[in-house]
Amino acid sequence: MSGTPNRLRLVRAGIDTYQQPVVYMHRNCSVCRSEGFNVLARVHIQCGGREVVATLNVITDDRLGADVAGLSEAAWNALQPEADAWAVFSHPEPPQSAPALRAKVFGRRLNEQNFLDLMRDTADNRLSDIELAAFVTACAGERLDLQETIGLTRAMLAIGQRINWGGGPVLDKHCVGGLPGNRTTPIVVAIVAAAGHRIPKTSSRAITSPAGTADTMEVMAPVGLDLASMRRVVEQEGGCIVWGGNVRLSPADDVLIRIERPLDFDSDGQLVASVLSKKAAAGSSHVLIDIPVGPTAKVRSAKSADSLEARLLATARDLGLTLSVLRTDGRQPVGYGIGPALEARDVLSVLRVNPDAPRDLRERALDLAAALLDIAPDAEPGSGRNLARTLLDSGAALKKFLAICEAQGGFTEPTVAPHRAPVLAIHGGHVRDVDNRRLAKVAKLAGAPISATAGVDCRLRIGHTIRAGEPLFQVCAQTPGELEYALDYAAKNADIFGIAEDAP
Amino acid sequence: MSGTPNRLRLVRAGIDTYQQPVVYMHRNCSVCRSEGFNVLARVHIQCGGREVVATLNVITDDRLGADVAGLSEAAWNALQPEADAWAVFSHPEPPQSAPALRAKVFGRRLNEQNFLDLMRDTADNRLSDIELAAFVTACAGERLDLQETIGLTRAMLAIGQRINWGGGPVLDKHCVGGLPGNRTTPIVVAIVAAAGHRIPKTSSRAITSPAGTADTMEVMAPVGLDLASMRRVVEQEGGCIVWGGNVRLSPADDVLIRIERPLDFDSDGQLVASVLSKKAAAGSSHVLIDIPVGPTAKVRSAKSADSLEARLLATARDLGLTLSVLRTDGRQPVGYGIGPALEARDVLSVLRVNPDAPRDLRERALDLAAALLDIAPDAEPGSGRNLARTLLDSGAALKKFLAICEAQGGFTEPTVAPHRAPVLAIHGGHVRDVDNRRLAKVAKLAGAPISATAGVDCRLRIGHTIRAGEPLFQVCAQTPGELEYALDYAAKNADIFGIAEDAP
Repeated sequence: MSGTPNRLRLVRAGIDTYQQPVVYMHRNCSVCRSEGFNVLARVHIQCGGREVVATLNVITDDRLGADVAGLSEAAWNALQPEADAWAVFSHPEPPQSAPALRAKVFGRRLNEQNFLDLMRDTADNRLSDIELAAFVTACAGERLDLQETIGLTRAMLAIGQRINWGGGPVLDKHCVGGLPGNRTTPIVVAIVAAAGHRIPKTSSRAITSPAGTADTMEVMAPVGLDLASMRRVVEQEGGCIVWGGNVRLSPADDVLIRIERPLDFDSDGQLVASVLSKKAAAGSSHVLIDIPVGPTAKVRSAKSADSLEARLLATARDLGLTLSVLRTDGRQPVGYGIGPALEARDVLSVLRVNPDAPRDLRERALDLAAALLDIAPDAEPGSGRNLARTLLDSGAALKKFLAICEAQGGFTEPTVAPHRAPVLAIHGGHVRDVDNRRLAKVAKLAGAPISATAGVDCRLRIGHTIRAGEPLFQVCAQTPGELEYALDYAAKNADIFGIAEDAP
Repeated sequence: MSGTPNRLRLVRAGIDTYQQPVVYMHRNCSVCRSEGFNVLARVHIQCGGREVVATLNVITDDRLGADVAGLSEAAWNALQPEADAWAVFSHPEPPQSAPALRAKVFGRRLNEQNFLDLMRDTADNRLSDIELAAFVTACAGERLDLQETIGLTRAMLAIGQRINWGGGPVLDKHCVGGLPGNRTTPIVVAIVAAAGHRIPKTSSRAITSPAGTADTMEVMAPVGLDLASMRRVVEQEGGCIVWGGNVRLSPADDVLIRIERPLDFDSDGQLVASVLSKKAAAGSSHVLIDIPVGPTAKVRSAKSADSLEARLLATARDLGLTLSVLRTDGRQPVGYGIGPALEARDVLSVLRVNPDAPRDLRERALDLAAALLDIAPDAEPGSGRNLARTLLDSGAALKKFLAICEAQGGFTEPTVAPHRAPVLAIHGGHVRDVDNRRLAKVAKLAGAPISATAGVDCRLRIGHTIRAGEPLFQVCAQTPGELEYALDYAAKNADIFGIAEDAP
């Protein structure tokens, strides 16, 4: 839109508003007056060759001059202005995707072009948090059908970069999550790369859990690699485990995750689009999906798993990916630790073939590595399991893992939390069930994943017996305040472990 | 939740973030470190006897000391701290309504208790903008059934104050909106109060339109009255026209409207709950609802009007209200002006029985006043129309209107915009249709409702003939920049008026 250029000098406000760009202007500044901007208005800012749409917060005291606009960190990073730069302020064009958003909110089906408009506006920060929340909600539950899921996946894929590995199979695995401590990825990548395959793994940070694979891996090696560095690691070692955020394989998904995190939900359609757009963008050709099923896992029943599996398979087919699903036991945590450093300790323990390594984590990593090796081209069906065990027990996987860490920037041994306290059983009996969600909540209240050493250390499993006064689990925290919050919550939720009193 | 008290000194940040409370803390302040708070965390702040939950923005430069927290205007007003007051910071309890919100997002039905939890948390600012947007979206379209609509209405009503007028009928009217310039309310209130009835009218400011009744009324008299002042006006004059925001009859609805505004949508269920909770809270007993129907009005078809009417009637019955619906022509604007001051001019022109007063506004106000007088207890059916016309033409309604304005704080004559320009017809013919939404958009781009004199002045009606080069309408603005934006948009939308070329 044209109009009289309205200019203000840009300053860095020094305020971190996470990803949403915010601009701070004085109520009486020339731009607010001439453009009629009011609080929460969306403002288009152009400076040099860059532009951003920011949300207006109004300064009511005399801190800012009338010819100056402050930028939040996200807005500053988007514009990267030079010192004392002037910018032009105007009303943004309404986002091109506004009619599609409105249509979806009112329950109508969208086509691929609609999703393309929406994902482009999402990645370009043209939608406000409120609009993004409306989109996420309008797609939740059963509100995206298969064709829409495919459309959303293709749209997410289309607007990001896509890695070309120059031919040959590219393996990958993904767990749909929901199971505390289930940190098989570093072990599987190490085994599969040690077998000579290419497995460039990008992982997310925690969305609603106490740790994502990227959070856990970061305890042991740098994960914030850009695409060029990631390519160098994979060309050298065959595999990597890096954070997907800097690779920007699905930039719209990164924005949507920011909205889903505080809402603490995501839905089948969005999950499939998020996972498969990233796999296709990463150049993967053969993908194994781990779906843990259990009453308090993300996928709670065989029926839900059927529906998710069907949607994954159909969408993968559309994208030309070979995809296989392995359903795993999702009734209880895997490994001892829940939280980045505690999980890293378990991963290393399995790779080092320590006698006290968590057996469930070892077996599950072997199952997944085997299933992935089995779908690789030219694999002899059923040969994967033996190959995986040999590579792990011989130390080849450990060697490969350490080489990957070195290539990513150097290996670091995990440390332990300074504050620890046990949560004790009130009465004895045998363990009947575990509420994964509330156990994860304890780890989150203890500070995970932001505090890397925080979390829960838990060796109790379904079927084990325990006596009153014995520890159910340990809580680990970086600060006394967080330890107390987590213990408070645990005390109020004494039934996280369901203990059946044994018959006399 | 207990825990080590974490204290910081409060300062006023001087930043207006509209209604959402924001707290600004330095990345390294003791509270962020001990509590593990990160950007966008929800933070519970307690000071004196007051508390608020605010969203954290992190200060990255040295502006704030490590023992100081800045508060946005909304947070400052909620806590009203004394000079140099210290406050205690902690993790908020998760909102009690979180499970209900999640259930609704995933498409489940809610009961009245769920809605009560949600509306209490909404009014108490315990839900973030993202959560509120999820709730609004989860209730959009057909996602609230009748029973849920009633539950939401009762919940909105339960958490606010309710006016008791001490017996006797209390009349009220409401227009579901969507028609630019349709400012009948001040005229209807004046007529009905002049007839000796009690009609305490609370109105909203614009949600997605260029003017709400409160915006228009404010051009002529103060509208920000509190409950005690409103009561005084009504006891003295029988009627009032005030802004509902300060009366806080439905505080949760005021918060939801903030979210619906940028999304530019509301749905049947929320509309019914919003309107009827406010009517019941205002102590009304007999309510007339004006539903304009037209292809670009809010209600677009007879079928939509049927469905909305049925929901209004059933919900009113549940609340014990007598309700009647009048459907009106929603194909084109009503009156000449669109925008607060321009509409006020039309209202006064009708009340003063000026010969050039807009005839459509006069007739429609008489229709509505007649329908409302007819449902009043003891009214002789069909007598309303004559009574209304007599009260208007005799000057009794004008006298009553000016008395109401005086009682509300004093009457002011509307002023005119300093910048005006016509939009000309490109070709001649007769007017076939009008796009109300895009015409309203022109008025909004011109600055309405924030600039009171801004808007559109339009005398062209369906069936009129026009020649090429003659004005379709005038754009009025407070500033040259806004005038240009509005004209730009009008030029790009030359078909706002559908002109059929006349047969030769």
